[in-house]
Amino acid sequence: MNIRRFLAGAMTMMAAMAITVSAVTPIKTDVPERPAGQTHLVGFATAPMDSVRVGFIGLGMRGYTAVERMLHVPGAVVKAVCDIEPDRVAKVEKMLADAGHAPVASYTGSEDAWKALCDRDDIDLVYIVTDWVNHTPMALYAMEHGKHTAIEVPAAMNLDEIWALINTAESKRLHCMMLENCIYDFFELNTLNMAQAGLFGEVLHTEGSYIHNLEEFWPYYWDNWRMKYNQAHRGDVYPTHGIGPACQLLDIHRGDRMATVVSMDTKAVNGPAYIEKSTGEAPETFANGDHTMSMIRTVGGKTMHIQHDVVNPRPYSRMYQLTGTKGFANKYPTEGYAFEPEQIAGDSVPDHENLSAHGFISEEQQAALLEKYTHPIIREVGEVAKKVGGHGGMDYIMDYRLIYCLLNGLPLDMDVYDLAEWCALIPLSAISIENGSAPVEVPDFTRGAWNEVKGYRHAFKK
Amino acid sequence: MNIRRFLAGAMTMMAAMAITVSAVTPIKTDVPERPAGQTHLVGFATAPMDSVRVGFIGLGMRGYTAVERMLHVPGAVVKAVCDIEPDRVAKVEKMLADAGHAPVASYTGSEDAWKALCDRDDIDLVYIVTDWVNHTPMALYAMEHGKHTAIEVPAAMNLDEIWALINTAESKRLHCMMLENCIYDFFELNTLNMAQAGLFGEVLHTEGSYIHNLEEFWPYYWDNWRMKYNQAHRGDVYPTHGIGPACQLLDIHRGDRMATVVSMDTKAVNGPAYIEKSTGEAPETFANGDHTMSMIRTVGGKTMHIQHDVVNPRPYSRMYQLTGTKGFANKYPTEGYAFEPEQIAGDSVPDHENLSAHGFISEEQQAALLEKYTHPIIREVGEVAKKVGGHGGMDYIMDYRLIYCLLNGLPLDMDVYDLAEWCALIPLSAISIENGSAPVEVPDFTRGAWNEVKGYRHAFKK
Repeated sequence: MNIRRFLAGAMTMMAAMAITVSAVTPIKTDVPERPAGQTHLVGFATAPMDSVRVGFIGLGMRGYTAVERMLHVPGAVVKAVCDIEPDRVAKVEKMLADAGHAPVASYTGSEDAWKALCDRDDIDLVYIVTDWVNHTPMALYAMEHGKHTAIEVPAAMNLDEIWALINTAESKRLHCMMLENCIYDFFELNTLNMAQAGLFGEVLHTEGSYIHNLEEFWPYYWDNWRMKYNQAHRGDVYPTHGIGPACQLLDIHRGDRMATVVSMDTKAVNGPAYIEKSTGEAPETFANGDHTMSMIRTVGGKTMHIQHDVVNPRPYSRMYQLTGTKGFANKYPTEGYAFEPEQIAGDSVPDHENLSAHGFISEEQQAALLEKYTHPIIREVGEVAKKVGGHGGMDYIMDYRLIYCLLNGLPLDMDVYDLAEWCALIPLSAISIENGSAPVEVPDFTRGAWNEVKGYRHAFKK
Repeated sequence: MNIRRFLAGAMTMMAAMAITVSAVTPIKTDVPERPAGQTHLVGFATAPMDSVRVGFIGLGMRGYTAVERMLHVPGAVVKAVCDIEPDRVAKVEKMLADAGHAPVASYTGSEDAWKALCDRDDIDLVYIVTDWVNHTPMALYAMEHGKHTAIEVPAAMNLDEIWALINTAESKRLHCMMLENCIYDFFELNTLNMAQAGLFGEVLHTEGSYIHNLEEFWPYYWDNWRMKYNQAHRGDVYPTHGIGPACQLLDIHRGDRMATVVSMDTKAVNGPAYIEKSTGEAPETFANGDHTMSMIRTVGGKTMHIQHDVVNPRPYSRMYQLTGTKGFANKYPTEGYAFEPEQIAGDSVPDHENLSAHGFISEEQQAALLEKYTHPIIREVGEVAKKVGGHGGMDYIMDYRLIYCLLNGLPLDMDVYDLAEWCALIPLSAISIENGSAPVEVPDFTRGAWNEVKGYRHAFKK
């Protein structure tokens, strides 16, 4: 609690302003003290491994394809699979057999079948692809049993879960990575590479979103968990695809950190309308607005803008966009770049003398630039990724990098604080919205270590 | 002041929340009581006129072309012109002579030369195209002297100016219209027409912005007024091109009204850098951030998102976008529409059966739809507007409609409350930003009349 500061601020406000009253300090949430003897995981890496033995929990829409992709990742070994539904396990077993793979251990048939998978001593990594609310409990159990964890998005749904994952990963000295795939999409990776090369000058503002009309997907979520979650919770409940790339561009907890978030939503219309249409009965309550947006400011004076909309008829968009002091990038609905002409003068871009900062560069110029600034990860596995697939290849790149970093004893591309920061928008946006779009302080999940590394970079073996 | 409510709210918060502290009620600004005997101007119209005699103040970049355009508007008579710079007056006089126009009264050479223009008794409308800070003082003087006023954007820069314009227009029973041209652009008008026909279902969320790298324009502002304003003021100082179309789509003060605004900006980098580059000296202070954004929620549960950026290298964008329960429209960087297929089933759109709400309709389908839903104003003057020009025709349509409504004794397309609501983002965004992105209440500028008219519509003679 910070009552003294709050009241002092309030009194100052009232004395100073003839016409305005109220909000001064942002809403704060509790930051649990780091237990004695426990240290942070910024830059954390484990010893190199000869192979990474993986156990999968959840074999539904995303889980099935995750197992399939992992068969193509060098150094990965599929050891065990688990799903509450026996037919999903059977389907994966058939896929493995068809691929000529030896049989793997499988678990099913009960709500805690997954625990036996985590208990095995021949697994290095538990890969969790279940419904949202089971992500954190499973990851905590897996880490308690000595396993690294990779968790589908969002890995955690509230601040208690986030802090529990951080404390467990820190105390057990284990990786806890969220499976945020969109940071590995080709445009995002190449643009990040350009940003890190300074082409955009100082990146001041980034945008991202999850705008995806899920109407045709709703019937396929086990026990209708996704719609139920939206019905019960207000806020940006699925922010990571938007905020992940936005944070990497701004070096979040590598020299800067999010300070404040403010969120706002529309009323709920299409959410409850879908329930009425599909069940014949209008729901008595429906918490989440159709369209949610958030603004975030960092301590370094940068901003982010994040949106969520899964119920309105809109073309898919992750809004990916950056504004820099010397350049601009935009992915949706069309990919484009703009620069101060001198920014790309040495880059063999055709006719760069005729560039105008007011317009997008031509397709020809863009192709020349992308050729030069192709991200090293894409040079390394881009072709394979496109063949294996998974959202155009980004899913494969994500799995490849996870295994690559573990094999080589490198820090993962995303650590537990990325997970925390990206998932925190879920509870923090809810707090803001439920308090009339009040500003909410974003905790420093590194608890003091956000400025130790200067600039986000992927790790590569020497 | 609202101290009692504020403290009561604060105490409730502190008692109820273990982990959060602070903001509860939005910051409020004073709403002056409407003077006795004065009534609102919603739906206000004056008696039909045979001609509209216009006097222009300000003949710089926008003013010169405004006079030129007005020569083409049926029923308009250019009566007098004024500028502080004699050469600008001479340039307009030459343009008029070249066009075969009889000489008009002209005023120049002193800071208050414009007053004599307002004093004339043969002028119906004073058309103000000066620097921002002179807009309101000139409009107030013109109305005090019995003239209708049309004022370039933004018409007012703070709440005192806004309330003064409202009170003067209400008490004098005169039109006070802001010259917001972007509501007349072709895509905006046609999309508004589709929205009013219900094609998008219920419009839930709208976006707009002024993103325009002004680097090549900065040297041409008289006394460097525009950069000086940005140097001295934080907030979205130029919101009307974005918020105007956004508000019309949401029927603001025609059945709904803005309730709360929250704003956030980046630090200032390119603003001060430009001053340093152009003067050789870095400014000691620079108030306005490079990139500013605001979120607005209406009492009806709709939202708006508005951005401002005039210093970073980005392609021009007004971001114009709407999300409805049954459709979507987007103007930048490419114009596109998406619909639930049944929305346009009766509209002779090719292959509407194959539409997917996930994708933009094809160019062919868009052309068919635009043909059917061409806004009546564009059918009426679109061709002439394109010939006369002015930002592709929208400037001419704006002038045409202003004169058309005056001639026919109709309510203008924009009233003094539109002016107030759209300009209010300037001071309200500043208050929010200066208070850490606190929510700020948007005053009801109609003082009770926002729900009398149901739905925004343009007026036409019978």
